[in-house]
Amino acid sequence: MSNHDFYMNLALTNAQTLKGQTDPNPLVGSVIVNDNRIVGIGTHLKAGEPHAEIHALRMAGDMSRGATIYVTLEPCSHFGRTGPCAQAIIDAGIDKVVIATLDPNPIVAGNGVQMLKKAGIEVIVGVREEEAIKMNEVFNKFIVTKTPFVTLKAASTLDGKIATHALDSKWITAEEARLDVHLMRSQHMAILVGVGTVIEDDPELTARISNGRNPLRIVLDSTLRIPLDSKLVTDGIVDTWIFTSQNYDADKRKALEELGVLVFETSHDTQVDVVDVVRTLGEKGISSLFIEGGGTINAAFLENDLIDKVVFYFAPKLVGGKMAPTFIEGTGVEWMKDAIELRDGEFSKVGKDFKFTGYPEKRGSSI
Amino acid sequence: MSNHDFYMNLALTNAQTLKGQTDPNPLVGSVIVNDNRIVGIGTHLKAGEPHAEIHALRMAGDMSRGATIYVTLEPCSHFGRTGPCAQAIIDAGIDKVVIATLDPNPIVAGNGVQMLKKAGIEVIVGVREEEAIKMNEVFNKFIVTKTPFVTLKAASTLDGKIATHALDSKWITAEEARLDVHLMRSQHMAILVGVGTVIEDDPELTARISNGRNPLRIVLDSTLRIPLDSKLVTDGIVDTWIFTSQNYDADKRKALEELGVLVFETSHDTQVDVVDVVRTLGEKGISSLFIEGGGTINAAFLENDLIDKVVFYFAPKLVGGKMAPTFIEGTGVEWMKDAIELRDGEFSKVGKDFKFTGYPEKRGSSI
Repeated sequence: MSNHDFYMNLALTNAQTLKGQTDPNPLVGSVIVNDNRIVGIGTHLKAGEPHAEIHALRMAGDMSRGATIYVTLEPCSHFGRTGPCAQAIIDAGIDKVVIATLDPNPIVAGNGVQMLKKAGIEVIVGVREEEAIKMNEVFNKFIVTKTPFVTLKAASTLDGKIATHALDSKWITAEEARLDVHLMRSQHMAILVGVGTVIEDDPELTARISNGRNPLRIVLDSTLRIPLDSKLVTDGIVDTWIFTSQNYDADKRKALEELGVLVFETSHDTQVDVVDVVRTLGEKGISSLFIEGGGTINAAFLENDLIDKVVFYFAPKLVGGKMAPTFIEGTGVEWMKDAIELRDGEFSKVGKDFKFTGYPEKRGSSI
Repeated sequence: MSNHDFYMNLALTNAQTLKGQTDPNPLVGSVIVNDNRIVGIGTHLKAGEPHAEIHALRMAGDMSRGATIYVTLEPCSHFGRTGPCAQAIIDAGIDKVVIATLDPNPIVAGNGVQMLKKAGIEVIVGVREEEAIKMNEVFNKFIVTKTPFVTLKAASTLDGKIATHALDSKWITAEEARLDVHLMRSQHMAILVGVGTVIEDDPELTARISNGRNPLRIVLDSTLRIPLDSKLVTDGIVDTWIFTSQNYDADKRKALEELGVLVFETSHDTQVDVVDVVRTLGEKGISSLFIEGGGTINAAFLENDLIDKVVFYFAPKLVGGKMAPTFIEGTGVEWMKDAIELRDGEFSKVGKDFKFTGYPEKRGSSI
């Protein structure tokens, strides 16, 4: 590992720890090194607060002069809620800037690097670039498309079933995997379920981890069947938004709105139009969506090319059953050659269960 | 790694290479070390030929005197097709015997160790025992129960489907995984499919790897629908046995038998009784069975507690489909808590696909 890799690794590690806390801003970490000594460490903590470089420069003080700064993302060149970091780096007398990856934000996108170079500073781009890009996969999509990064989550037996033929589903995975799901919930701005789940389980859909941020709760409900006394409607822990079809019950909508629930119509006559859902969430500034639906909802999002990432938990057990529901249903593709390929798939162990993450190949339709 | 581990590892590596070639005998490797120098290496090659220790002793010659012999399985104490290895070790003047695991064969089972100890030889048992036991999982079961070790194989999409809703299944996994299946076929004495597979695909069910041993081919066919011109009936590459119900077509049976196919009745009126199948195969000396059935056959063997090991290949792709067949169907269990747990499960990568191996917890029913 070169020195560049070593210091960038520290900056990446610090940044990653903040996952879910900086939305809608990206995760960014920074390290300043002077004469082979770390003199500053900074991480962006929260939107509206100083960027990582500023924290690091403050810590380094006079030691910034002639130093090298490592930043996981290109320093900004614009006046946002804070001044441009590139200018602060120039003013501090930094000698060299090592950047993991350029900022995809159209108002930065290389301008930060230009600004530094014009000031005569040496700039290196691309150190641990792959990790830096992956770390901000949510930000990278949202800043460019203004639609949320959508993660599909499912938990099934190894034979792909999310319940037995008698629809018993408690529990498929063990404690550790369920805790991991709560951590993932806290790292997303919104979580989405179908009304069937609400009627059956009356869930809270909160992130039950200490200091976990609770995501906004989204329910797909084509006719507004959601019970008025369900926790999502009454508990007030965090907002609940319902997406419905043109076929909704007007009185029920009024009752829900009186209870503080937002109801959004989508364009389809009888079903919730999932393309509308994702587009609307983007317009409302929701940058990340975590889908915990059943096989029908999962299929609808997949078929409409709306899924950016999948996270599947597999319990090492078998239930069998021709009629047992699986985690992706709908009609499905007709030909095996048209299957949705998953890029960069990998398995890891979570407690006694297995966790798969991968990225569906986009087909260019929808959003 | 201690010296004992180092030499036993070499013996295990040699033995494992012969997988599938020594049936019904176990895989055994041996190394002789004198004064920190390897002086003999032996591996059992084929039933009826010398055991591993004999090969190693021959190679060592006079250097056996005062040496340490490493053996992956307890030396035998009985006269089989060859003389007792324990006696040969004593006669060669060996000083110390290091054994990975005792021989579960009831006619050995500790007697080899006793024989050596009585002759004043130091014996150590248990070096790399777990690997040694796992390497001979087929032998260990068959020598005690006289029923085959049954491996269930399936290849599915990550969402558990073995075909699309339109029943298209070509191809799910990539070349490397399919080659791995051929290797596994060559390591089993028999391979089993349902008649549906024969009618649809007219397969050869051979091990298409160079020098691959072809397994005996077993077809479950409750009414004898198998086409008389199918490759399994006509190609003569290796024998085909058909298991049927009491409801078979007598004329068809005669025609099949005239073509050299063996037909076995099982006890059930309308279906093939899978417990009968496994029992009969055991009586015929088949020690290992590789099941490549569809969801219904797989469920029947699992429900009857007949599966010793599962090997599932998962392609990182999704097809969806409520009606798409999955790799374990049947009725399935009613309650999630009654799911069949898989012990020692692990995933590995095979080409672009993933391979899971695990061991179903036995419930004590059937065989």
